Amino acid sequence: MFILNTWYIAAWGHEIADKPLARRICDQPVVLFRDLKTKQIAALEDKCCHRAAPLSMGVVVESGLQCGYHGVVHDCAGRCVHIPGQDKIPARAKVRAYPVVEKNEFIWIWMGDPELADESAIVDYPFNDDHRNWPHHRGFYHIKAGYMLMVDNLMDLTHLGYVHGSTIGGNPQTHVEALMDVTKTEDSLKYVRWMLNSVPPPTYLAAVPFKGRVDRWQEFEFSPPSNVLQWSGAVDAGTGARENGNRSGGFSLRIFHGLTPETENTCFYFYAPANGYRPEDEAATAALMDHISEAFMEDKLICEGQQARLDELGDGGLVDIVSDATRVQLRRIIRRMAEAEARQNAARAQEAAPRAAVPQA
Amino acid sequence: MFILNTWYIAAWGHEIADKPLARRICDQPVVLFRDLKTKQIAALEDKCCHRAAPLSMGVVVESGLQCGYHGVVHDCAGRCVHIPGQDKIPARAKVRAYPVVEKNEFIWIWMGDPELADESAIVDYPFNDDHRNWPHHRGFYHIKAGYMLMVDNLMDLTHLGYVHGSTIGGNPQTHVEALMDVTKTEDSLKYVRWMLNSVPPPTYLAAVPFKGRVDRWQEFEFSPPSNVLQWSGAVDAGTGARENGNRSGGFSLRIFHGLTPETENTCFYFYAPANGYRPEDEAATAALMDHISEAFMEDKLICEGQQARLDELGDGGLVDIVSDATRVQLRRIIRRMAEAEARQNAARAQEAAPRAAVPQA
Amino acid sequence: MFILNTWYIAAWGHEIADKPLARRICDQPVVLFRDLKTKQIAALEDKCCHRAAPLSMGVVVESGLQCGYHGVVHDCAGRCVHIPGQDKIPARAKVRAYPVVEKNEFIWIWMGDPELADESAIVDYPFNDDHRNWPHHRGFYHIKAGYMLMVDNLMDLTHLGYVHGSTIGGNPQTHVEALMDVTKTEDSLKYVRWMLNSVPPPTYLAAVPFKGRVDRWQEFEFSPPSNVLQWSGAVDAGTGARENGNRSGGFSLRIFHGLTPETENTCFYFYAPANGYRPEDEAATAALMDHISEAFMEDKLICEGQQARLDELGDGGLVDIVSDATRVQLRRIIRRMAEAEARQNAARAQEAAPRAAVPQA
Repeated sequence: MFILNTWYIAAWGHEIADKPLARRICDQPVVLFRDLKTKQIAALEDKCCHRAAPLSMGVVVESGLQCGYHGVVHDCAGRCVHIPGQDKIPARAKVRAYPVVEKNEFIWIWMGDPELADESAIVDYPFNDDHRNWPHHRGFYHIKAGYMLMVDNLMDLTHLGYVHGSTIGGNPQTHVEALMDVTKTEDSLKYVRWMLNSVPPPTYLAAVPFKGRVDRWQEFEFSPPSNVLQWSGAVDAGTGARENGNRSGGFSLRIFHGLTPETENTCFYFYAPANGYRPEDEAATAALMDHISEAFMEDKLICEGQQARLDELGDGGLVDIVSDATRVQLRRIIRRMAEAEARQNAARAQEAAPRAAVPQA
Repeated sequence: MFILNTWYIAAWGHEIADKPLARRICDQPVVLFRDLKTKQIAALEDKCCHRAAPLSMGVVVESGLQCGYHGVVHDCAGRCVHIPGQDKIPARAKVRAYPVVEKNEFIWIWMGDPELADESAIVDYPFNDDHRNWPHHRGFYHIKAGYMLMVDNLMDLTHLGYVHGSTIGGNPQTHVEALMDVTKTEDSLKYVRWMLNSVPPPTYLAAVPFKGRVDRWQEFEFSPPSNVLQWSGAVDAGTGARENGNRSGGFSLRIFHGLTPETENTCFYFYAPANGYRPEDEAATAALMDHISEAFMEDKLICEGQQARLDELGDGGLVDIVSDATRVQLRRIIRRMAEAEARQNAARAQEAAPRAAVPQA
Repeated sequence: MFILNTWYIAAWGHEIADKPLARRICDQPVVLFRDLKTKQIAALEDKCCHRAAPLSMGVVVESGLQCGYHGVVHDCAGRCVHIPGQDKIPARAKVRAYPVVEKNEFIWIWMGDPELADESAIVDYPFNDDHRNWPHHRGFYHIKAGYMLMVDNLMDLTHLGYVHGSTIGGNPQTHVEALMDVTKTEDSLKYVRWMLNSVPPPTYLAAVPFKGRVDRWQEFEFSPPSNVLQWSGAVDAGTGARENGNRSGGFSLRIFHGLTPETENTCFYFYAPANGYRPEDEAATAALMDHISEAFMEDKLICEGQQARLDELGDGGLVDIVSDATRVQLRRIIRRMAEAEARQNAARAQEAAPRAAVPQA
């Protein structure tokens, strides 16, 4: 079961130019395309209302998306607006349209009840638009694991020492012993890990002339159900950054992690590592992307292995450990969202049902 | 469910020389081979009666098809005729044999009740044997779509402008507005599309010195349940060819389209584009094959896309349009054939059943 | 259903050095690794008790196998012995361990009840350890057929003339007419085939200066449920080797055939052709391996074809022939083993069940 009444990232905006794009989201085949005139994005069920051909095999025309089989055209709202050889268009000639919003370089899609789609609920990530201060490359992986396993991964960094030993990991013990400042509410979760007075990693040193040891932080904010906003960096040790909140004057990078369910046990991973430490240095931005992509490939592989075992053997008998604390929290948040959606659906179904006949006295 | 009491093309005759050929037809594994002496084709269930090894992994010997595992031999009728190391051959040592006929370069197979197999019911296509006037290459595609989707495709040419825009298509509007002369009976369907007084396409012009505009026809005859005979061409405009039936003196090509169900949602496509306009020109025959194969690849891809959506989402809610008229007809013919076969099977089953005991007075 | 209370070959010993090895055995995911200190082999369920990641993606450390995700360590007995970031280890933090024994270059595994695992029941094959007199290479094939089809194959050599016509086969009639000395008991089966006074094959001649014709034998011993020990060779014709048992002074080679069920219809094939005729000649040992591997590829292909047909069509209606005699015997032995194991399991289940309440008078 998917949470449907929420915004997922369907694509990077740049992926959709003059050709339609097919993508399966929440196990539904979707076609995305950009209107020729308005340049706005539309998302439709990827199945022509005429003979079921995938609309993604068609072409974008003035009036909408033209099916590549017999030329039927649907507009951005999914209405059939042209049938070759006939003037009358039946009212039922249409396909489902999904609300979409282009924001911060992402195409956000709402797979649930369109009436509930609230654009203001989309998480803000202005850094993607600030190419001068936060230059970044745009990453995309197909993951053969459910999105929740990837969120688990991001919200428990004790894996760094083991999964990323040869890339971004470093000393396992340091990661296990990092201080965790966790902020949580009913529906949000955020932590800042501090490695105080620690030796700065080579990447950091190469970018910033630290005096010696540093206070290093990793801030991870969970934007339910499937996105994580990361801000990492370091300042000279002993400046009290952990307490006073002043993290400027040192090293800093940001990564947006967006997970989108493709099927129950596969997902898409959109990520964007932004170079906040030498923003004018294009080579540094590219190198950062390479390092991060290599590390995320390691996450992809371990989560895919994990998914394969869970698919076959289930999760019975697994043992939670201390470092699972945030994972347990985030799973609770996701479960609450799913339960709330189920209640809402049930209530609406009851409303829609005909009243029961009242027995006469 | 397949229509079984009918003839399907199992293979091109040239595919079967000295080695057996495995091919799945109507979801049954079949092996085809050519008798060493008579050169006649036989078709057997592709499973040795001894230990179930595929007979198609064996070799053709004097007495029949020798299993490649332990050397058991079955003859063309499926009878076991040799068991290494023993003289006595059990009566039940046999495999199913299917009626086959080689005609017009095709191997036709009857997957249903052998008693009903009537060779005279096989469609005539003498052009395949007339290499001087109708030279052709022999095409074969494996299609990941049910054969009916391919028949649909052939019997509604309004797709030409959309699917084949870059190959044999041309102006969509011309195709949508073509005149349709449809002839239909309970069990047959044929149409001739006329594009009167139209500009001849470059291929036509290169072959025939037309005076100017042409009357162009496309004749498609459906041979149920799964073959289509095409004859296309053009003569100088205004000669009254549509009315008087005289189509000689211009451009002309023929294509036999044979579809054979492999499984419920895959099929084989046998096609043979015959060069009737410059028959002595081998390069023209080869070029025609190339153009047609490229175009049919486009059909293959769109039908495969369509099948994928139908497999997942079903055909509920689809909307018929004007150009579906012949498609609706041909589907009716196929349905009638299937229903007739079901009735026949039920009647035979009843005949075969023991009489109910008559209660004594 | 698998026979579980028996020893299967999990791997060649040399396959497991410093990295863990994943292998599915009896449809269970297993990880094998070699203890850093003792160099002994351990086999665990390939699923971390923490978050289900495959342990085979981890690394071998001093205390056992460290999970590659969050660093949890299990020892050779499957007990969790280290959890990063916490001292207390819950008692239920463990994974299943399988008894394993390294013997004669093979890693033997017991997939059933560990209490019943009796190391002395493992078949002896000292030739694998005798590199001076029986030099060999180590073969491994993944077979998309159940192990029993491969055992069938080995215990009925009449297939040689058909499957191996171009490799080790030779004249089919010779093989069909070979004398069979069969020894069988309730749970064992062994045969020696003799081709008396036959022409020695080229390989034999090149190795040994035979005077002329030879008495050639093929001894195959079935070690239930899934291993076969082969000894083949020849001596000068007429020395009475068949009667007096003296097979020295001629040509001789040995092959251990070990089959291990991966799933119900796939298996692993471990084989080791040992050069007993020119043991000091490394090139001869390598050439023997090449010939044998090529021939076994032919067995693999025919058995995979057979399995595909059986998977689809079942084994109804198959006809046994004279040469199936040993196959029928070995299948009986396997069935008896399976039935004995089922009875044993049922008895233990009854023992373990609470006593039924005795009704009071």
